[in-house]
Amino acid sequence: MIPTRVIEAKRSGERISTEDLEAFLSGFLDGAIPDYQMSAFLMAAYFMGLDEAETEVMVRSMLGSGSKLDLGHLDGPRVDKHSTGGVGDKVSLVLAPLAAEVGLFVPMMSGRGLGHTTGTLDKLEAIPGFRTRIPLDEFERILSEVGCAMIGQTEEIAPLDRKLYALRDVTGTVPVIPLIAASIMSKKLAEDLTGLLLDVKVGAGAFIPEEDRAQELATTMVSVGERRGLATVALLTAMDRPLGRAVGNALETAEAIRCLRGEGPDDLRRLTIVEAAEMLTLGAPDVSSEEAEKRATEALDSGRAFERFMRLVEAQGGDTGVAAHPERLSTAARSAVVTASRAGFVTGVSPRALGEGVVALGGGRVRMDQTLDLGVGFEVAVALGDRIERGQPLGTVYARDEAGVREGCTVLEGAITLGEEGPSEARPLVSHRITRDGSYPFG
Amino acid sequence: MIPTRVIEAKRSGERISTEDLEAFLSGFLDGAIPDYQMSAFLMAAYFMGLDEAETEVMVRSMLGSGSKLDLGHLDGPRVDKHSTGGVGDKVSLVLAPLAAEVGLFVPMMSGRGLGHTTGTLDKLEAIPGFRTRIPLDEFERILSEVGCAMIGQTEEIAPLDRKLYALRDVTGTVPVIPLIAASIMSKKLAEDLTGLLLDVKVGAGAFIPEEDRAQELATTMVSVGERRGLATVALLTAMDRPLGRAVGNALETAEAIRCLRGEGPDDLRRLTIVEAAEMLTLGAPDVSSEEAEKRATEALDSGRAFERFMRLVEAQGGDTGVAAHPERLSTAARSAVVTASRAGFVTGVSPRALGEGVVALGGGRVRMDQTLDLGVGFEVAVALGDRIERGQPLGTVYARDEAGVREGCTVLEGAITLGEEGPSEARPLVSHRITRDGSYPFG
Repeated sequence: MIPTRVIEAKRSGERISTEDLEAFLSGFLDGAIPDYQMSAFLMAAYFMGLDEAETEVMVRSMLGSGSKLDLGHLDGPRVDKHSTGGVGDKVSLVLAPLAAEVGLFVPMMSGRGLGHTTGTLDKLEAIPGFRTRIPLDEFERILSEVGCAMIGQTEEIAPLDRKLYALRDVTGTVPVIPLIAASIMSKKLAEDLTGLLLDVKVGAGAFIPEEDRAQELATTMVSVGERRGLATVALLTAMDRPLGRAVGNALETAEAIRCLRGEGPDDLRRLTIVEAAEMLTLGAPDVSSEEAEKRATEALDSGRAFERFMRLVEAQGGDTGVAAHPERLSTAARSAVVTASRAGFVTGVSPRALGEGVVALGGGRVRMDQTLDLGVGFEVAVALGDRIERGQPLGTVYARDEAGVREGCTVLEGAITLGEEGPSEARPLVSHRITRDGSYPFG
Repeated sequence: MIPTRVIEAKRSGERISTEDLEAFLSGFLDGAIPDYQMSAFLMAAYFMGLDEAETEVMVRSMLGSGSKLDLGHLDGPRVDKHSTGGVGDKVSLVLAPLAAEVGLFVPMMSGRGLGHTTGTLDKLEAIPGFRTRIPLDEFERILSEVGCAMIGQTEEIAPLDRKLYALRDVTGTVPVIPLIAASIMSKKLAEDLTGLLLDVKVGAGAFIPEEDRAQELATTMVSVGERRGLATVALLTAMDRPLGRAVGNALETAEAIRCLRGEGPDDLRRLTIVEAAEMLTLGAPDVSSEEAEKRATEALDSGRAFERFMRLVEAQGGDTGVAAHPERLSTAARSAVVTASRAGFVTGVSPRALGEGVVALGGGRVRMDQTLDLGVGFEVAVALGDRIERGQPLGTVYARDEAGVREGCTVLEGAITLGEEGPSEARPLVSHRITRDGSYPFG
């Protein structure tokens, strides 16, 4: 394998043999292939893509570069969910205990916030004491006892993916669909699952905003999973506006806990129930969709999912007193309510503006090693299509100081668009369901 | 300037501001921008190109990164020629003394062989004692006394280009027309010329084989030169077959000396006279093309160009006894004549096969630091369209040992295609002349 030839082949749209691509990837991992050759290859892949066979090599090399969980001893289906990331997406905190409550084991390995989105790990750490870095044997014990456990990606899982992602992040080569698919799937395949649900976000707040490209990503990931015998389903879900009302780490944690206690908001509650039902049918194919949704709804409404969540918090060292009373979660020092300067209909709530606003307020990362201000963010008081009167609250800004409050107010005002027309068009909360049989409108 | 944004902008086809591109390039030169970001940028430029303004910034940054000759004290026009590189291209050795003989100063900075082509410096060094690394003050003295001087690119000229080229060479980003143009022109602009002739090769043996892309390269370079007030003309010349009969360093040097002594071959002689005449009209616009060609022909036929060449060899420390008797140049230990295994017409002489054959025999570089076997190579005995009988010599292989001879014979036989049809189509020796006014068929 001659590295320059591999780069030139990708650049010219030729197929790269399995042998050559494997050697190129393992050379990169062990340092024989320098970063500058890999980044040229990645940029060529941005333009020329990777075909199915190349994507498969990528997944296999990433997966094979690290260790894999062995959860075969668990007495039940093992199903996880992965979201491609969106603004206000706190589904995992509600979903993991809910899915466990309907009979699944959920070995969830999540990420931190990056770019304009917050991450599950940061949200969990808003609960004092909650440990997201725990040894794998302890992780397995909690999983076995509680039915779910939530940690960060460990050093042992897919180190090739980690090294590649770090390079992609600084070379403009993140938005390459087969690379995104391989990165996600290699980590999920390491979890030794029997089923996987993918929540692929679409719309302005998603990393891949366009529906056709989101479909492509979903289809690629489903194929990768199914080819390896993992039952995989993807849902395309709305990210043309934030999910729920809270945007910002501790604010989102609080909203997730309220949702577990039956206090909404509607879109978060609905999406979580849909996803729990999908996970259940993935894990137990003999359960019908209707039955699965019924069980998920009951598990949430009965408070059993919330109790399961409290057991998880306790098992992972979190302060259950705070978790039970989300109003005690860390909050920002300052806040202010933003009101409408005129009347109108809400025609847009920009997820990207709010997500980038959280970063600007110190609640999101611009560098990987940054310590976050978990309390900052936004509570949006209005939803798409609402009729608003002048002076009516649009939402609340939480910031660490007065300058932050001023900046946050500007962000929140700018994020909400008012128009003269009636209720605006919005994407359906869940628009498509993608299985190995194809992509179908949802519901 | 945020490096990732510059890469993303190029990737997405946005224009990069002069300020940002300058900062990106100077950051790369001083090490603040790592190689892996530059190589991603270069690959994005492979796909998206560089526009005129970006190319201009590239040239200016390369030129400004190093020193520039100051030859304004010379009493006459200063004109150089640059070839994009071809197989058997030994024009410079004949042309430099010839152009000097018609009244020009020729400050020629040349390169070494790379890829499948040999380089002027290696050919000069086939003459024992010939020094191609001399201090710039001595270079200027020889130039002033002899009218021409021939050296390698010094460390002081365009270090940014050198650093970029080294990276392009190992990342599959060499064939990017604006980068090639900027690389060539930055070095030629550092020579403080009043005129520049570009010999852009077209055909299978050229680095850019396609005529349309060769035209684009020529046009880009002419624009870059003219925008900076340098009178620049480009000729598109044939590289669908080797130039002359000799391919390999010392063999080419010998052929160039024979050409200076009036012993052909026709194509080399013709191209050199055409180029000398072009250089003369670039340096002395009041001289007509006809008059320029007449003067060049006389200077060659009279033996004065050869005498000038001998003065150059002496000034640069070369052995004039050997230079005067090219049969004394270093030759290979072994040789063999290849004969035709059947009768037919010569329908192809593959320049690339012969060029790569020289590399395989040890006469070309696969690494920059390689010591070459200057004596190896090929003397082709036939030309396109020749009628050949069975058993007639096709050419001679020169190699260092018997294994080399065998390999060389296979290469030479494979490089020559015989067919049933009569004289085959060949490119005109010079097909187009490109000036700031446009591209016109030559002659």
